[in-house]
Amino acid sequence: MSHFDIIVIGAGPGGYAAALLASQRGKTVALVEKNALGGTCLNWGCIPTKLYLGATAHLEGLHAQTRLRLCSGTIVMDMPALRKRKAAFVSATHKAMGSCLEKNGVALLKGDATLLDANTVRVTGAAEEVFTFSALVIATGSSSNWFPGLEPDHARILDSTDLLDLDEAPESLTVIGAGAIGLEMADFWNRLGTQIHLVEAAPRIAPAEDEEIAQTLHGMLKRKKWNIVTGKRVAGIGNEGESVLTRLEDGTEIRSAKALIAVGRKPNTPGLGLENAGVSTTGAGWITTDACLRAAPNIYAIGDVNGRTLLAHAAEHQGRYAVLHALGETAAPYETGPMPGCIYGSIEVMRAGATAAELAAAGKSVRISRANLGANPISQAHGQAQGLVKAVWVDGVLRGLTAVGHGASHLVTLAEIMVRDGWSRETAHEHIFAHPTLDEALRDALTAPLEDR
Amino acid sequence: MSHFDIIVIGAGPGGYAAALLASQRGKTVALVEKNALGGTCLNWGCIPTKLYLGATAHLEGLHAQTRLRLCSGTIVMDMPALRKRKAAFVSATHKAMGSCLEKNGVALLKGDATLLDANTVRVTGAAEEVFTFSALVIATGSSSNWFPGLEPDHARILDSTDLLDLDEAPESLTVIGAGAIGLEMADFWNRLGTQIHLVEAAPRIAPAEDEEIAQTLHGMLKRKKWNIVTGKRVAGIGNEGESVLTRLEDGTEIRSAKALIAVGRKPNTPGLGLENAGVSTTGAGWITTDACLRAAPNIYAIGDVNGRTLLAHAAEHQGRYAVLHALGETAAPYETGPMPGCIYGSIEVMRAGATAAELAAAGKSVRISRANLGANPISQAHGQAQGLVKAVWVDGVLRGLTAVGHGASHLVTLAEIMVRDGWSRETAHEHIFAHPTLDEALRDALTAPLEDR
Repeated sequence: MSHFDIIVIGAGPGGYAAALLASQRGKTVALVEKNALGGTCLNWGCIPTKLYLGATAHLEGLHAQTRLRLCSGTIVMDMPALRKRKAAFVSATHKAMGSCLEKNGVALLKGDATLLDANTVRVTGAAEEVFTFSALVIATGSSSNWFPGLEPDHARILDSTDLLDLDEAPESLTVIGAGAIGLEMADFWNRLGTQIHLVEAAPRIAPAEDEEIAQTLHGMLKRKKWNIVTGKRVAGIGNEGESVLTRLEDGTEIRSAKALIAVGRKPNTPGLGLENAGVSTTGAGWITTDACLRAAPNIYAIGDVNGRTLLAHAAEHQGRYAVLHALGETAAPYETGPMPGCIYGSIEVMRAGATAAELAAAGKSVRISRANLGANPISQAHGQAQGLVKAVWVDGVLRGLTAVGHGASHLVTLAEIMVRDGWSRETAHEHIFAHPTLDEALRDALTAPLEDR
Repeated sequence: MSHFDIIVIGAGPGGYAAALLASQRGKTVALVEKNALGGTCLNWGCIPTKLYLGATAHLEGLHAQTRLRLCSGTIVMDMPALRKRKAAFVSATHKAMGSCLEKNGVALLKGDATLLDANTVRVTGAAEEVFTFSALVIATGSSSNWFPGLEPDHARILDSTDLLDLDEAPESLTVIGAGAIGLEMADFWNRLGTQIHLVEAAPRIAPAEDEEIAQTLHGMLKRKKWNIVTGKRVAGIGNEGESVLTRLEDGTEIRSAKALIAVGRKPNTPGLGLENAGVSTTGAGWITTDACLRAAPNIYAIGDVNGRTLLAHAAEHQGRYAVLHALGETAAPYETGPMPGCIYGSIEVMRAGATAAELAAAGKSVRISRANLGANPISQAHGQAQGLVKAVWVDGVLRGLTAVGHGASHLVTLAEIMVRDGWSRETAHEHIFAHPTLDEALRDALTAPLEDR
């Protein structure tokens, strides 16, 4: 029975970063993965969608500049070729990750992991082996979630993985769930000519975002002729003839060639044997962690599986912390700081830090300042005359920064830095913003007149 | 004879910002402009080129994705329509600037300004008027510079303004001068199918940039089949039949349909009567300033005309400082901090802070760290697999950050902040970089192994 200083279960962005850091700190490390390296992010999530969006950005450009009557033309995408390119990119990344693990002396164990007790894990792959560990990092991530009656048939009613494998653009697509995944997928196919129906049970699309940002996004998508329904649940979905029929709770029916179900995520905890190690879960199985991301004295849970923040970079940040904490290099509780997040595509959303509503709910006296991202010359140059940047202030200190419009994802790290470093309005004047850049819209928002919320 | 607390000569980015700030501080302010509001930047420089590059970004996308065989198609730009859109945007900005000046109580005086003494200026427009001032800000900018025998005929041998007014793409273009203006113009027309010949007298293109960055850019442009000649002066240029013939000093001849001369700038000082106010100049007429941007006790010179940094945002930053200094709100010498700058287009360059060569020449012990911008998933998604980010360190403190590749201009404000705030390698770990973003390439460069220069 082999022993490792640290065993990591799950080779997504969080587990991979944790394993590498631990081995670079001189520890013996094993990384257990039953599937491909890179997790959801690389294989079915962030990376494939960004490859698809990047490879079709010129379609959106053609639409935008054609609307302005500056050009004419046609572009035909070769979807099988795009799929192949995605597969090649993902496969090359697998190889690069594998050789990096090898170079750093991380043992990669292929198989399913099950905890036998608080110091022992069984890995069942080609063979079955048992290992002991001093510390364990659980980084098994999450999967698409289905509700009864709202499940993909993988033929016309699809999940996000199915939807990236279509050979041609469906004539129409009903997207159920208007979070980041639903919005990005809808945008991609819309560029290829698909009519979009977007259904969200919450009162607004992008429900995790600032209300005004979400409303601005809604208006911008309506101008792209999306059919958007909010505040209504799906009562049923099924095939009818050659179409998918989506029935809403109020009786509305939407017919479309395909449908995407993107209503949430569930934790990958079944079969892990958590109960054998004294690890408890909540809700659908999310692992309960303390202030130091511990599920047990020597067991950490990081990334999606602890339910804190379902984002690749959050997992990576937590993975790094868990290793440093396990090695005694930090004793402080885990702090995220202002978490950055984006919705990518033709119209993008970014946010770092708190929304005005969150701060107001916490009893803070909130002030806001705004700039029109659509007035920015770089946005105008790309044919987008709408957009919004919104800064949120408490006692003269920047506490949140969010934007919607052309290229907003390019602003997210700036926003993270400005919020984390607690910029004042004067800080924005001290820096020189290159002209012309989209970044100037952040400066404009930070220095605009303050208003009540 | 009217008196103003502050008179500003020149309504480019620097003069405009200075005039607005002074009036917002409660001073009586006049702004003298003989031409259009906005200066070179708005009317013939940064903004028109960025509108042209933004409006054709999808052509570059089509080329890039077609090279990867992911799509096929054609796009035809309507150049007269693009010119009209540019004119409309510029004109709308003139109106917005004019009404902002009016709202802030700035007197806009149309005409030529001539100093009569250190407290008096004559403005010759429709009428001739004389004004006195307590403080003066000279912000008259710069113009394209020609050398004898290397001058535009505005028919086939063009300046950058002519080149934005062509109705169709020339079959070929010889660009003389491989600085930002030459490179951006060449890129624009190359997107529309023009074969590019690029001639630079300095040993390398982008001579103001880090040598390795410039070399990487050179290699990337060669892959786009640009004919690049460096280290050779132009001996003569003239019309020959239907072509332009450019003869280099070594006898090489380049024939092309058009040529662009973009070899530098000269200060707009003739006729200002500087000698009457005790203001001295150097070289081609650049105004000499002290550590507080003063050309005389109550006269400031800001922006291009003082020859310090020929960039719109530098002028704006200097304009703000000059007003605060004139009002006694600051007494400290003027400091730029790490100046950000970009070359825009299909392959972009950004820089903030010092280059390794500059620091080494100043006797510093320099270390560098690098990342491959082309390996970044966002760059890959846009079909660009090459690029470089380079960080320059002295004593563990970031002193310069520069990059070349897809979308590098989006990184320039991040670079400015990181260098100005003196990031260490550890600072890069403390922040969370959203995944996937181009920004991660900066983090990768900052945390990569240190190397000797």
